[in-house]
Amino acid sequence: MKKGKLFVFSGPSGTGKGTICRELLKNPDTWLSVSYTTRAPREGEEHGVHYFFVTREEYDRTVEENGFLEHAEIYGNCYGTPKKYALEHMAAGEDVILEIEMQGALQVKAAYPDAVLIFVLPPSLTELRNRIRLRGTETEEQIDLRMKTTLQEIELLEKYDYFLINDDLGEAIETARCIIRSEHCKTAGYAKSLIDRYKEEE
Amino acid sequence: MKKGKLFVFSGPSGTGKGTICRELLKNPDTWLSVSYTTRAPREGEEHGVHYFFVTREEYDRTVEENGFLEHAEIYGNCYGTPKKYALEHMAAGEDVILEIEMQGALQVKAAYPDAVLIFVLPPSLTELRNRIRLRGTETEEQIDLRMKTTLQEIELLEKYDYFLINDDLGEAIETARCIIRSEHCKTAGYAKSLIDRYKEEE
Repeated sequence: MKKGKLFVFSGPSGTGKGTICRELLKNPDTWLSVSYTTRAPREGEEHGVHYFFVTREEYDRTVEENGFLEHAEIYGNCYGTPKKYALEHMAAGEDVILEIEMQGALQVKAAYPDAVLIFVLPPSLTELRNRIRLRGTETEEQIDLRMKTTLQEIELLEKYDYFLINDDLGEAIETARCIIRSEHCKTAGYAKSLIDRYKEEE
Repeated sequence: MKKGKLFVFSGPSGTGKGTICRELLKNPDTWLSVSYTTRAPREGEEHGVHYFFVTREEYDRTVEENGFLEHAEIYGNCYGTPKKYALEHMAAGEDVILEIEMQGALQVKAAYPDAVLIFVLPPSLTELRNRIRLRGTETEEQIDLRMKTTLQEIELLEKYDYFLINDDLGEAIETARCIIRSEHCKTAGYAKSLIDRYKEEE
């Protein structure tokens, strides 16, 4: 049976990576990981859908048990990707999607070199700035800081396997689907079992 | 401007790789290379479409001028992929498709490590045997020999970047398109120019 793969999406806020990941779930062989967090739920956030809202004790215990694919403390709040569910879904042949920030993505790649890292980019920083302004949730100062962080992240782009410029959402989703599809056709790590399959026939 | 890439398709006769390559040409940014050959045209073969039918002198001169991406003598006939046109089309931003046998494909990869090698596989050897039988152009002995060669080629699968099992033609074409699309989103060799593009903005 086909084994599932791990696909990690990162990218600045406002690039539409969340929308892209949710669209990918329309393929029934795809599963989206839900992170643990110790921060309080925001309005509209549901336990088990957007996050698993856990206590600091639960989080620390999971760290001790080596139960996270990646985890990090950001501005005093803890976040982590539970390992168990992701591995189970992959073993069942499903592709697992993680939508996590760069620090976590690089942790995953270090532990699982087969993970495929995809960085979602805005068409331009000007366009990203406009999109965030339109939301109206951040001050100009906060937006400036965000642009600076974004540029710092883009400088680490080569640590990712793929980039995905979200200029047109439909096209970006299609490209993401293509990356997943083509990754399943790579010979690397798979050639031997394929060869055996044909050899057994004769 | 986006630079074109080189995609090399190989695979046993009867896997439908020719059909797949022709379908890819429906994308106007894609160009199919036409090989030189010293063999005589077969019925229905057109000069400049299926092959450029050249003299041995023309072929030898091109070899001397280092004018082939790859070339080989097979059963006394010479074949070669002219370098000039392929490089011109890539420089113009077009993807270049080569449909050549394994020996040539590995020559291309050695000279151009950026070339993407795709091996088209039958769903099974039994199915391949049936397809060739249906054509009615080969004896059982010839088919046996072909199966042996196919199996030898499949053993070298790991030298290719991708495999493409042609079980359903429409799906195989779609997968081939996805491979080309995703290859254009790889950060390898491209991260620096992308980083510069965003940096220049700020």
